[in-house]
Amino acid sequence: MFLLRSMPLKASLSQKNVLPNLCRRLASSHREIPALTKERYPVKRGQYSEVTDRDVTKFESILGGSSRVLTQAEDTQGYNIDYLGSVRGYSRVVLKPKSTEEVADIMKYCNERKLAVCPQGGNTGLVGGSVPVFDEVVLSLQLMDKIEQIDEYSGILVCQSGCVLGTLEEKVNEKGLVMPLDLGAKGSCHIGGNVSTNAGGLRLVRYGNLHGSVLGVEAVTAEGRVMDLMSNFKKDNTGYHLKHLFIGSEGTLGIITKLSIFCPTASKSVNVAFLGLESYDAVKNTFLAAKRGLGEILSSCEMIDEASLESSTYHFNLQSPIEKYPFYMLIETSGSNMAHDEEKLTNFLESSMENGLVLDGTVTNEPTKMRNIWKLRELIADSLINDGYCFKYDISLPLDNFYDIVLAVRDRVGPLATKVTGYGHIGDSNLHLNVSCAKFTPEIYKLLEPFVYEYTSNVRGSVSAEHGIGFLKTKYLKYSKRPESLMLMQQMKQLMDPNGILNPYKVLPQV
Amino acid sequence: MFLLRSMPLKASLSQKNVLPNLCRRLASSHREIPALTKERYPVKRGQYSEVTDRDVTKFESILGGSSRVLTQAEDTQGYNIDYLGSVRGYSRVVLKPKSTEEVADIMKYCNERKLAVCPQGGNTGLVGGSVPVFDEVVLSLQLMDKIEQIDEYSGILVCQSGCVLGTLEEKVNEKGLVMPLDLGAKGSCHIGGNVSTNAGGLRLVRYGNLHGSVLGVEAVTAEGRVMDLMSNFKKDNTGYHLKHLFIGSEGTLGIITKLSIFCPTASKSVNVAFLGLESYDAVKNTFLAAKRGLGEILSSCEMIDEASLESSTYHFNLQSPIEKYPFYMLIETSGSNMAHDEEKLTNFLESSMENGLVLDGTVTNEPTKMRNIWKLRELIADSLINDGYCFKYDISLPLDNFYDIVLAVRDRVGPLATKVTGYGHIGDSNLHLNVSCAKFTPEIYKLLEPFVYEYTSNVRGSVSAEHGIGFLKTKYLKYSKRPESLMLMQQMKQLMDPNGILNPYKVLPQV
Repeated sequence: MFLLRSMPLKASLSQKNVLPNLCRRLASSHREIPALTKERYPVKRGQYSEVTDRDVTKFESILGGSSRVLTQAEDTQGYNIDYLGSVRGYSRVVLKPKSTEEVADIMKYCNERKLAVCPQGGNTGLVGGSVPVFDEVVLSLQLMDKIEQIDEYSGILVCQSGCVLGTLEEKVNEKGLVMPLDLGAKGSCHIGGNVSTNAGGLRLVRYGNLHGSVLGVEAVTAEGRVMDLMSNFKKDNTGYHLKHLFIGSEGTLGIITKLSIFCPTASKSVNVAFLGLESYDAVKNTFLAAKRGLGEILSSCEMIDEASLESSTYHFNLQSPIEKYPFYMLIETSGSNMAHDEEKLTNFLESSMENGLVLDGTVTNEPTKMRNIWKLRELIADSLINDGYCFKYDISLPLDNFYDIVLAVRDRVGPLATKVTGYGHIGDSNLHLNVSCAKFTPEIYKLLEPFVYEYTSNVRGSVSAEHGIGFLKTKYLKYSKRPESLMLMQQMKQLMDPNGILNPYKVLPQV
Repeated sequence: MFLLRSMPLKASLSQKNVLPNLCRRLASSHREIPALTKERYPVKRGQYSEVTDRDVTKFESILGGSSRVLTQAEDTQGYNIDYLGSVRGYSRVVLKPKSTEEVADIMKYCNERKLAVCPQGGNTGLVGGSVPVFDEVVLSLQLMDKIEQIDEYSGILVCQSGCVLGTLEEKVNEKGLVMPLDLGAKGSCHIGGNVSTNAGGLRLVRYGNLHGSVLGVEAVTAEGRVMDLMSNFKKDNTGYHLKHLFIGSEGTLGIITKLSIFCPTASKSVNVAFLGLESYDAVKNTFLAAKRGLGEILSSCEMIDEASLESSTYHFNLQSPIEKYPFYMLIETSGSNMAHDEEKLTNFLESSMENGLVLDGTVTNEPTKMRNIWKLRELIADSLINDGYCFKYDISLPLDNFYDIVLAVRDRVGPLATKVTGYGHIGDSNLHLNVSCAKFTPEIYKLLEPFVYEYTSNVRGSVSAEHGIGFLKTKYLKYSKRPESLMLMQQMKQLMDPNGILNPYKVLPQV
């Protein structure tokens, strides 16, 4: 029996919500201003107009003055560089509308003038989708942060798209509800950005994806048409389900300005278990046992390999609550009855240890300890960047050979890598494969790509499970989507954005 | 305390799965062959070719002989009449492909020949979407019923679209899984039809809608292109999420031939409670109490008004397990631990009775008794048809004034109606408003329409929550969708089906 064993965690981070901001600071402090995208990548500017002083004057008239039209380099720089510092545009103007009408007016004008536009939420994306590639006008949704309604009966939240996910979480919590998604970046990411990228995250195993949770959207098209696809209902079968065109199309088909989303009932009881295991097979079978034994209270099921945990503990001075093992699992339960949940968890863990699946573990329901365990998992991505450079792959793979690719890559790159690690949402078949090294070299790059994408494609996996395609992955799209699908995507884009001004160079390969 | 009180149910129907077939027989035995759609409704045949003997020969060559090409009137009649007997086409040919390639070949040929095609699943739709309006070729998916894979680890089912929902339910049950949707028609409806119509049903409150559960589809377009949008993963953010174009577009944008769907873990413990309440307000507050008290085990939450229960008990000779009340609720729980679930249910019911929300009730976990309680709810729709004629409205409404429309309609039609009843999935804000009468009269029709649609539109509800638009509701689409949305739908149709041959006269209003 190892339950409720005390945990001598020495983690230095314990304040609530400190995580995203800390990561953010770390990310920016560690890195220089990156090279311009146009210099680093082989990409050609489209035939768009350039922003003139007259355009700026027009924008000021639309936005009622100059306070929401940023044109000074020191003001616009943050909007030109992405979170990972991997891409940089040189937009000279950032617009901050407050209403759907203002967004529509901006788009109408830009479409007429053939000015390219890059919509931007919290700018926490990992594939360069949220910053300009060249000089696109940045349309920031930052000031569109009104909450219109939270209905405790139906569980429906209606809000503007610029609301910060963490803020929404707090507000719906007050009504006994919970947001159906949770992300490491919740302190700064916007719900509109989450929906535009079909963000996955840590609760997907429990509450499903955003195509299921988002009940309605309002979006402004490239031509400035307001598509009112709002619905405050879980059931609405009236015609084509157009809202899904905006979920996951990363701002290339329209700019989401408002949305309604279903929020499940908040759980009264939360537990986190951290387990040590011998092999990937034990991880897979423990996942199945958790699905069966924990059933409806299972809310997260994460896998972490030894190298991943070594990285987060080392770089962030965290301490694992258990000894070293080849694999770890973080299992979270959320339910409505603490005694019931603890009994289910105890039964599950006892039987998993008895049959040898799990070698050691700890479980807690104390908020600080739970947060500390979550940090072990959530800080892996940022910790690996500290090795110098990190190749990141976010892929879906069949559970049968989920971890094989980590071994194959480790074998391939040998001592060229500092670490080859695999971790992620095993509950959703989503692996984060990370290869860290002292610095980027063409040698290791060539060993990794297209190998990783071809491998994934061969098992019919997804080359971008949750991060999206953005700017950085357009050339890999073909590994997960067939030519007919790509053709239909191009046709959709042509239909909905005839001048191609909306978030150009993103998602679809340049033709 | 009223828990586990014995239930002297005298229901005559108790065999497993007898329900849909019984309803089916009942429906057909009660009704004459309906008038031809073209005679009953103001609809104009499109400029399509007519099927010739040469076409039939071509179809026979595609399908390898004549056995899967039905042309005799007695063979085709059933495919020309819908489940409710409200519409009838006069197609002279029914095709039964077995593979995606055959479907593609048929569509290529029909597109070249400008022959209109009506795809058909189990033909259990309620809005005339699954039968020809005129002489469209019927393409039945009946023989495309192969199950390719059921993975107990990931919970993914991959199958052809002609699989019967009830059969799939049995097969996934064997692997410890459950289908994410459940419908009264499961004995004959096809999963492909379910997905094409975005069917809702009884488990939506627990497992969400099909846009969330369906992970991939393969569909054949009007031009015979195979769109391979299959994915066996819950996370796949590679480009536009095109599969959603096929979910809920009722076979007008493509014919779904294969799909993968996520199946949750089966529950070991199921309980059903049947409650009596004084008012709609008590129903609404009991729903909130159930969400909070039963939390993660709540799997159905249905409301039934007095008139609805009177109808199903009377026409099907069923007996309610409790006395008469103005309102009833059927609450189902599904969980992984019988003792825990019973304790939660007991606590919830005790507190609901103590605070006066619930006046009486019974709860059971015996399969036969649970089925009998479900029959009280599931047979309402069919029972009302026995009054002679029944106007059926399937709408989403805000919970605050969810039941007001029933009172308003009752007031409006007065003695012209036999019964004005309201029941449905309160857990999903979905009301079934039914008005039964001795026979259809223009007088009552005019009192009901467009009143019901305008009322629904005014509270921004949905005029078709789960049944879809089909043929019968195209003119009401405008009550739930704005002109810009309708325009985009028309553009999508034009893009994906330039000759307009795929399920014409359905979903979109004729232009």
